[in-house]
Amino acid sequence: MKKEVLKEPIFAEKILRIIRSSPSMEEMREQLRDYHDNDIAQSLKYLNRAERNLLYSALDAEWLAEIISYIDDPVEYVDEIGIDKLSAIINEMDADDAVDLWENIDESVKVKLRPMIDDQTKAAILLINSYDDDEVGSLITTNYICIHQSLTIRQAMHELVRQAGENDNIATIYVVDGRNRFCGAIDLKDLIVARENVPLDSLISYAYPYLLDHEKISDSIEKIKDYAEDSLPVLNRDKKIIGIITAQDVVEAVDDELGEDYAKLAGLSAEEDLNETIAESIKKRLPWLIILLFLGMGVSTVVGAFEGVVAVLPVVICFQSLILDMAGNVGTQSLAVTIRVLMDENLSAKDKLHLAAKEMKVGSCNGALLGVMALVFLGVYIVLFKGYSAANAFLISGCVGLSLLAAIVISSLVGTLVPMLFHKVKIDPAVASGPLITTINDLVAVVTYYGLAWVFLIDLFHLV
Amino acid sequence: MKKEVLKEPIFAEKILRIIRSSPSMEEMREQLRDYHDNDIAQSLKYLNRAERNLLYSALDAEWLAEIISYIDDPVEYVDEIGIDKLSAIINEMDADDAVDLWENIDESVKVKLRPMIDDQTKAAILLINSYDDDEVGSLITTNYICIHQSLTIRQAMHELVRQAGENDNIATIYVVDGRNRFCGAIDLKDLIVARENVPLDSLISYAYPYLLDHEKISDSIEKIKDYAEDSLPVLNRDKKIIGIITAQDVVEAVDDELGEDYAKLAGLSAEEDLNETIAESIKKRLPWLIILLFLGMGVSTVVGAFEGVVAVLPVVICFQSLILDMAGNVGTQSLAVTIRVLMDENLSAKDKLHLAAKEMKVGSCNGALLGVMALVFLGVYIVLFKGYSAANAFLISGCVGLSLLAAIVISSLVGTLVPMLFHKVKIDPAVASGPLITTINDLVAVVTYYGLAWVFLIDLFHLV
Repeated sequence: MKKEVLKEPIFAEKILRIIRSSPSMEEMREQLRDYHDNDIAQSLKYLNRAERNLLYSALDAEWLAEIISYIDDPVEYVDEIGIDKLSAIINEMDADDAVDLWENIDESVKVKLRPMIDDQTKAAILLINSYDDDEVGSLITTNYICIHQSLTIRQAMHELVRQAGENDNIATIYVVDGRNRFCGAIDLKDLIVARENVPLDSLISYAYPYLLDHEKISDSIEKIKDYAEDSLPVLNRDKKIIGIITAQDVVEAVDDELGEDYAKLAGLSAEEDLNETIAESIKKRLPWLIILLFLGMGVSTVVGAFEGVVAVLPVVICFQSLILDMAGNVGTQSLAVTIRVLMDENLSAKDKLHLAAKEMKVGSCNGALLGVMALVFLGVYIVLFKGYSAANAFLISGCVGLSLLAAIVISSLVGTLVPMLFHKVKIDPAVASGPLITTINDLVAVVTYYGLAWVFLIDLFHLV
Repeated sequence: MKKEVLKEPIFAEKILRIIRSSPSMEEMREQLRDYHDNDIAQSLKYLNRAERNLLYSALDAEWLAEIISYIDDPVEYVDEIGIDKLSAIINEMDADDAVDLWENIDESVKVKLRPMIDDQTKAAILLINSYDDDEVGSLITTNYICIHQSLTIRQAMHELVRQAGENDNIATIYVVDGRNRFCGAIDLKDLIVARENVPLDSLISYAYPYLLDHEKISDSIEKIKDYAEDSLPVLNRDKKIIGIITAQDVVEAVDDELGEDYAKLAGLSAEEDLNETIAESIKKRLPWLIILLFLGMGVSTVVGAFEGVVAVLPVVICFQSLILDMAGNVGTQSLAVTIRVLMDENLSAKDKLHLAAKEMKVGSCNGALLGVMALVFLGVYIVLFKGYSAANAFLISGCVGLSLLAAIVISSLVGTLVPMLFHKVKIDPAVASGPLITTINDLVAVVTYYGLAWVFLIDLFHLV
């Protein structure tokens, strides 16, 4: 469906045909110009090495740079391209793409490349690498238009045309003052429709939003989304523009951010993909599992304290898994909701209280409902299959129902407070909350359940 | 931190000061022009009604339309704006924003509005509403530049300037043929730098990627991301452009898509937010919990079959929760990885086999490791706290270790195959997989554990 709709294979086929059947390189260029660079990039894998080499020599470095920036894992092709062409390509690339590519080239090749990389590209790569992966600065591209505040409309237009040759993020034009500090932005549309005699000043938004290079990506994603611009400028502490973040970068960032939390919620220390080695996967999954193993042993100790109950009334163990699973699921639900809320907005103390109270209410309602269902259905079940008298059966199912209610209410609260707590002390709640919550909920559930069983069934009603 | 960095309160304060202290409306407009519409939108909530009314009358409908499109819940303000202004605003809005707003206006107001909405806006709203929420057509905006194939560069430039007044997504210019069918696209940058004497034809990409109005958003998100364009055209079956999808729409779509899966993984039938009523939250959480309650009863029945074991050897129940929790966690890890992979790529049968095999291997390694740890630590624990002889203690912990291994391996496999199966039969794996996997894993774990306990500890070694 997807493939058919987006015509990917068809584009690819056509591209292959062009590359294989073009009489001349000029002809090949002419025809390929009609295709999106991403489609050309995706068709590389269907070509054999000779055909790819033909393509490399047919297209200039600038074009190849565009194409390669669309390839997820370009290294395999890098080796095929000669050093000279490769260096030219890297010099033509957007800084952020160049960084991605550079990271994946072996040192042996890098040694030969370094002297051939121009200083501007070198500087850009150094700059981007100087930021941590979770800082906004690590996402920037230096591919943007920047003009001086004092220009006239006509001069600005000229400057735009000059810079547009190099840089293709032109929808917003950034403006700097006499000391090269960011002072505002012009919407290209306004510049294009502006009459020549109006002052450029009247087109500039002087309070245009911006990001700071060292702020955390996760902290700024929501804001970037809110401004819904094609790009936002990134400034250093001197208010100099070091680069921009484009909407495409934001798409990636949102995807990564959520993907990570999604993975963490499931007990992975980081996101995995298909091509990962088994060792890598194990490394990402084992930490939590080990923590859980030991926390689980803690729970075991507590359960052990109730051996007595089970010894005299074995029927109760039938429903332990039921209660623990329910508590666990409710806890996860509250956890997921809380993490998303914490991620999406800056919560005031009032909001947090509100959220916790709401989770409590939801938990109580769900708990009451499920408790009653358990009481009824399990009661019947125990009469039919365990041969207890109706009275005793409903005493037992009553214990289960009550425990469910208690376990669910407490799980909802724990699933809300624990992540908030971690968030407050600046520990990523998505990572840390899971195991702790599971354990707390298990303990609560076990104690309530066996405790009730002990008091009601054995002490009070001497069911044995 | 976030707030401070993005200067939101500071922007807001300045905007408030301007609105409160401007001597004239002209003056207010002049000063507000420097601010981003989103910042003006966010500062509305800090104004009192009188101040907002002042703003409404100071700004023209086009500007207010921009501002309102940034407000998440504009209804509260809609009532304050007079019908005449409101209708003017809606007529100025991008089609997709107009739709969002329109949905939230009460029928009583709509009745008055309808006659004042111009036909173009009416048509756009009708068009967008004619698509299901999960179809690409429901995301489009009609705010784009479209020119005719046969124009010259100069004519195209003129047309651009003319349309740019209305439409602000100008980075890509869409081209239609003589029969008004989409035939390609021009990168604005190329048009701007082009010399006047070259034919427009040479700037047009004739195989430009596009989306079809009825395709599923979830199916196309990855592709849209891959092309990394500011916008992509959306065509109907006659190859006519009905609108475009912008990078901002994609950001939202990616966020929603992942948020939904994230919620579903946690057992919510849909994503929740802070402002939801308790009833809504319960409606989203209860379905799964009820299913799990009944599946859990199934597990209880199986556990019940082993009452005999527990009656004679109560110590074994200590570790049931440990084994079930571990199985559950491993299953969730595999589930999360599989769903993400299924979401991100079109898997060939080979890939699927590869993935399943990998999960098996990872599961075996983790299982073996954790099994051994359980054997050792629990063995010691049982000797110390349960007063069993070393031999018996390690027999018991051996059972636990073996069960862990078995349970973890099988959980990994189940956690991979079940979502694949659902995906194959076109059921959303994120929704359906969770409860089924939990149950299967519980059953497997319980049977292995108590089965082993029975055979080894009781039959073979007569531990009792």
